[in-house]
Amino acid sequence: MFTITSLKNGLANVRGIYCDGVNCGLRPDPEQGDLAFIRSEIPATLSAVYTSNRFRAAPLRHALRYGQTFEGNCILVNAKNANAMTGEAGIRDVEEILSSLPAKAQALNPVMSSTGVIGYRLPVDKIKAGLHKLDWHAKNSDAAARAILTTDSFKKEICLEVELEGGQRFHVAAIAKGAGMINPSMATMLCFIATDAAVPIPEQERLLKEAVDRSFNRISVDGDTSTNDTVYLMANGASGAYHPEAFAEALGRVCFELAMMILKDGEGANKVVAFEVTGAASDEEAARAATNLSNSLLVKTALFGEDPNWGRIAATIGASNVACDEEKLVIYYDDLLIYDAEHRELNPEREERAYRIMKQDSFRIRCDLGMGEGSHTAYGCDLSYEYVKINAEYRT
Amino acid sequence: MFTITSLKNGLANVRGIYCDGVNCGLRPDPEQGDLAFIRSEIPATLSAVYTSNRFRAAPLRHALRYGQTFEGNCILVNAKNANAMTGEAGIRDVEEILSSLPAKAQALNPVMSSTGVIGYRLPVDKIKAGLHKLDWHAKNSDAAARAILTTDSFKKEICLEVELEGGQRFHVAAIAKGAGMINPSMATMLCFIATDAAVPIPEQERLLKEAVDRSFNRISVDGDTSTNDTVYLMANGASGAYHPEAFAEALGRVCFELAMMILKDGEGANKVVAFEVTGAASDEEAARAATNLSNSLLVKTALFGEDPNWGRIAATIGASNVACDEEKLVIYYDDLLIYDAEHRELNPEREERAYRIMKQDSFRIRCDLGMGEGSHTAYGCDLSYEYVKINAEYRT
Repeated sequence: MFTITSLKNGLANVRGIYCDGVNCGLRPDPEQGDLAFIRSEIPATLSAVYTSNRFRAAPLRHALRYGQTFEGNCILVNAKNANAMTGEAGIRDVEEILSSLPAKAQALNPVMSSTGVIGYRLPVDKIKAGLHKLDWHAKNSDAAARAILTTDSFKKEICLEVELEGGQRFHVAAIAKGAGMINPSMATMLCFIATDAAVPIPEQERLLKEAVDRSFNRISVDGDTSTNDTVYLMANGASGAYHPEAFAEALGRVCFELAMMILKDGEGANKVVAFEVTGAASDEEAARAATNLSNSLLVKTALFGEDPNWGRIAATIGASNVACDEEKLVIYYDDLLIYDAEHRELNPEREERAYRIMKQDSFRIRCDLGMGEGSHTAYGCDLSYEYVKINAEYRT
Repeated sequence: MFTITSLKNGLANVRGIYCDGVNCGLRPDPEQGDLAFIRSEIPATLSAVYTSNRFRAAPLRHALRYGQTFEGNCILVNAKNANAMTGEAGIRDVEEILSSLPAKAQALNPVMSSTGVIGYRLPVDKIKAGLHKLDWHAKNSDAAARAILTTDSFKKEICLEVELEGGQRFHVAAIAKGAGMINPSMATMLCFIATDAAVPIPEQERLLKEAVDRSFNRISVDGDTSTNDTVYLMANGASGAYHPEAFAEALGRVCFELAMMILKDGEGANKVVAFEVTGAASDEEAARAATNLSNSLLVKTALFGEDPNWGRIAATIGASNVACDEEKLVIYYDDLLIYDAEHRELNPEREERAYRIMKQDSFRIRCDLGMGEGSHTAYGCDLSYEYVKINAEYRT
């Protein structure tokens, strides 16, 4: 039916898409980018998923004028300053910057995305000067991916090529940032997806939402939800090709793999853990328990300590206000049964096996509540000294 | 009308109350207590508030047979083992231990409280042997207060003496433990209050609940809620004295001061911060925002870093699903205006003053949402390297 292949160079593979990143002086090191764009040279449709935070940052409030899906072909991104809690003045700064885009940017309904510290006005002049340093006909996905990072320790970039029966091809590619303040209902994360697939416009927003729900909305680094979270999908149809299942699968994989990269890069995190809750009374209850597991400080520190202390798993489920019963609960670490009503205390052999599982970079904690058919998986990471250090010293 | 005075020696001041603590071998160091009792030599009434965790530990399930308020005069407490997730066998262990209380304990409907690791059976024989090491006619509040501690770094003990007009006196005294896993809807905390006031039995449960709601249910160390949280109030009427307002005030102060001690002793914590939310659309919304502030990892690490990053305060409020507006929000640190629509960026002078406020052991962060009349105060602490260390290495 179709094959999906991973390609290097991220956004550069997508037909009609240009991108670049430069330093415009927001970061002190001139080698580190802080300003990027992604644009389509032909007309395109943008769909957005924005943060659920009530204090949406100025660039989101500006873009929301166009609705969630609109004709748009240019996204400008800056790091270091979130342009959040800056009021109407912050929105005017966005307007002023976007009205200064050079003609060669050919921008229609351009939008901004920002990430960084909250509460300070954008250095508008620096950014306007930076617009002329960007190469508006470059396909420099690497530079764009690096320029949007904040506390991230590695760039996040992906491209999938879909080949349909008959040889037609399209691409789904993206860059993303995000390392802390990551929580279901988005994260402090930005993700810019571009595709040359001929996505039917009426489907585009729903397809994006579904992909986001199964990826970025299932990861948690620290339970905090930022003012700036945004996922954009820019579709320009330049390939002329489309296949509903293939596109949904490729988009889903792009989002999921970037979400896992964000989690692996969770501030100070050493492990990624899938919290799989099954047998809940409902999917909602499963989601609540799984999300709480991924957010619990006691669970996260036990992961860091590689301590198979399943009592903290059980206590977190019990505190989640979900139907549960200690006689029916079953907990597995990967395929190791770690708790059921017949096996409560860890004997030395199972404890030794649990230690080995927990030493891995990633593993699975599965909890069957035995109450019904509800299920949900959330993804989290451990909490290390490094997290505290990064976040205690972030702004200073 | 009445005067309230603080006395030393905690529970020892309460007429008709005996208490003691010894080591029975649950802790390796024979100098450290791990078994305690509190009992009344005359008939008494016990009221309880238990954890909202669905996986209630065996001693709670045992005690719940008697209801939330019952005739009872003896509480036995052990540390190091929570007797949680131990099934029916755990309840039988409680029964076996309590049926071995010596005759001189004169116990009527005795109950147990346990704290420590989850998922292991109690060492019943050690505890039964320990029952004979306890001095059942001691008034050793210090030994009892020390024997119930786990990761606590100091004992928590208080006594208030109320003197009424005309010279009648009664006492409200308590011991408590709790350092981590502290969250609204209780905490991993145990608190045993005894009073010789002649509390009307029909009022006792409500008075206890109100005091708990304004104290233990407003503090958060790490957002986790344990399987064992319990507050008991034992009232024996031995003073013959009672005064409704005086008793409510003394009980409220006992609970609040112990809650603040627990927070000060938050695992690795260095500061206690009051998060006061006013002007919310409702008290419920105020409580949600205040509680989220006290639980936010980004807020807690900023407190540890003494970084006046009010953006994290604003972002947490915005993520709390409460009515808010960045033009109406006002944030104070103590009496320093740190954000309003006219003062968004911190100038150096205000930043310097904010640093000085944040260096204190305790201070207040007040957020007025400007949306209505709802208000709530929650109490939290910072998150330090030490928290991670304590909780990564707890069981091992």
